[in-house]
Amino acid sequence: MLPLEVLQRAGAEITNYQGSGMSVMEMSHRSKVFLKIFEDTQACFRKLFQVPDNYKILFLQGGASGQFSMVPLNLISKTGKADYAVTGNFSNIAYKEAQKYGQISLAASSADKNHTYIPTQDQLKLDPEASYFYYCANNTIYGTEWQYVPDTGDVPIVCDMSSDILSRPVDVSKYGIIFAGAQKNMAPAGLTVAIVREDLAGHELPYTPLMMNYKTMIDKDSMYNTPPCWCIYMLGLVLEWLEGQGGVPGMEAIKHGKASMLYDVIDNSRLFTCAVEKDSRSDMNVVFRTGSDELDAKFVKESTAAGFTNLKGHRSVGGMRASIYNAMPVEGVEKLCDFIKAFDKNN
Amino acid sequence: MLPLEVLQRAGAEITNYQGSGMSVMEMSHRSKVFLKIFEDTQACFRKLFQVPDNYKILFLQGGASGQFSMVPLNLISKTGKADYAVTGNFSNIAYKEAQKYGQISLAASSADKNHTYIPTQDQLKLDPEASYFYYCANNTIYGTEWQYVPDTGDVPIVCDMSSDILSRPVDVSKYGIIFAGAQKNMAPAGLTVAIVREDLAGHELPYTPLMMNYKTMIDKDSMYNTPPCWCIYMLGLVLEWLEGQGGVPGMEAIKHGKASMLYDVIDNSRLFTCAVEKDSRSDMNVVFRTGSDELDAKFVKESTAAGFTNLKGHRSVGGMRASIYNAMPVEGVEKLCDFIKAFDKNN
Repeated sequence: MLPLEVLQRAGAEITNYQGSGMSVMEMSHRSKVFLKIFEDTQACFRKLFQVPDNYKILFLQGGASGQFSMVPLNLISKTGKADYAVTGNFSNIAYKEAQKYGQISLAASSADKNHTYIPTQDQLKLDPEASYFYYCANNTIYGTEWQYVPDTGDVPIVCDMSSDILSRPVDVSKYGIIFAGAQKNMAPAGLTVAIVREDLAGHELPYTPLMMNYKTMIDKDSMYNTPPCWCIYMLGLVLEWLEGQGGVPGMEAIKHGKASMLYDVIDNSRLFTCAVEKDSRSDMNVVFRTGSDELDAKFVKESTAAGFTNLKGHRSVGGMRASIYNAMPVEGVEKLCDFIKAFDKNN
Repeated sequence: MLPLEVLQRAGAEITNYQGSGMSVMEMSHRSKVFLKIFEDTQACFRKLFQVPDNYKILFLQGGASGQFSMVPLNLISKTGKADYAVTGNFSNIAYKEAQKYGQISLAASSADKNHTYIPTQDQLKLDPEASYFYYCANNTIYGTEWQYVPDTGDVPIVCDMSSDILSRPVDVSKYGIIFAGAQKNMAPAGLTVAIVREDLAGHELPYTPLMMNYKTMIDKDSMYNTPPCWCIYMLGLVLEWLEGQGGVPGMEAIKHGKASMLYDVIDNSRLFTCAVEKDSRSDMNVVFRTGSDELDAKFVKESTAAGFTNLKGHRSVGGMRASIYNAMPVEGVEKLCDFIKAFDKNN
């Protein structure tokens, strides 16, 4: 979901960007007009997300799945080992992918309780010799979210923030690499943002594909080849909108308000429960269920008829899931709360 | 450059695609509405480019540069060897990149004459043991274009058609893999089309990143992860437009008319020459020069003032370059011809 005013603005200048006579979709990525869009977007991201100077902000392609390979290809050479916490589907794919490139250990897994919780610091088995520690901040399918940044000593932390980036302030200096596919909380699909501590680049394995080399991308400021220009432009518009919402702290207040409203309705309902432990609950993806497959199916059917989309839970967990990313207005969540209350009363 | 009517259509439905209440930029790639866009675009491409049934049409990310690694990662294992023809900048990068993965031979190079010609069939040193033979169909910087498909016997041909795809009919069955970054002749930057003969997939090197595995992408019909949805939608609109121009044969007639007009003006001028051998000239990128750096600079300056953009030649060759991709209207080329004639008369 993207804010309506952002889409309207993009539509208004789609054939002629600010008097340039061209669409952003037609511009050479080396043209002055596009370079300004690129640099402004990068600078705005740095300001809003408070990215320190020794980190580069890269605009890449390939999604988070591309990063699942790019991370080990570039970082594993230090010791040949890395630690992964598996708390859901995407961290599990990342964990398996990394095994192509080195000796990968499971620092923690929440699979024992079907990923309904986030491991505590004490539960993490950390190897001080690991080249890096990896986790996924928010698990969209299971509705869990890390509420703390692990303490890993000197081991750099790599974090997939695809589904909660820009929804809360982050102390970037605690991380080695943060990456995020844009399509959940930032911009249209086709852009991946990677925030890379500069000293971590330049140690890639010899067979690293040229487009998967952080050092190359840092040296060329993400312009080794043509970047996904339109998505970068859209990200710029979204960041401007986000600034108008009070920046990341403003966004956090709004999203926490939306999520609390929804969890309150679920917790106070007769029918619905949320299987996720309270201190592990995600503010982005709220999972809930009735305990009856038939009632769940009825809820999905009736909510779809009422105009709510994508409320069906992922097939691996069943039940329902409400995704309330940044662009979802408060009114949308209020309407959903009303719908849940009415369903709870009538069934 | 994209056709104006395509941009207008995209602008008209940017907030609400055909009554769906959503922008294409917001749709889940698994939604019915987007799946229809995806499948229609794929089918239209197959029809227009006459892609046989034993080839898959993949919508990928990472540009042609991503394919420079993906091709050897997936094909080199057959014999560990491959042949490359280097006729310009991009084939040279591909040639160097492939060396990470196997024993790569130079089947031909036009570097001896600063890439002003395309090697003939007789000049190709072909190894029947090669896993594949690689070339780049059109060389944007040097203004050359292969006017024949090499005969390589049983060795599969891999071709980078980034800058001339959909500008002329191609006998796809003569190729193993054809790929193209979309941004020159098809759609906005961020989409790469790969046409892969199915039997060539599934032999990737063990350390192939998951997003660079043709087999995975074939099995998942390009939806292993979220594809670049907006670019695919834009490609669909461009293909519809192209159909209205008489399809690929219609486009070929138009582009050949545009290029002939330009080459005629250059060849019949007093000041200008085209360094490229006549049978190697590109219909997409027309390079020309006066022989005097000062006059070239004057031409670039005055043409820019007259509203022509990007006529300066690449720094590695100097002079001028007119890129006349599919979306460039005939009138644009006519105006340029008039400008060249006037400059030729007045200088």
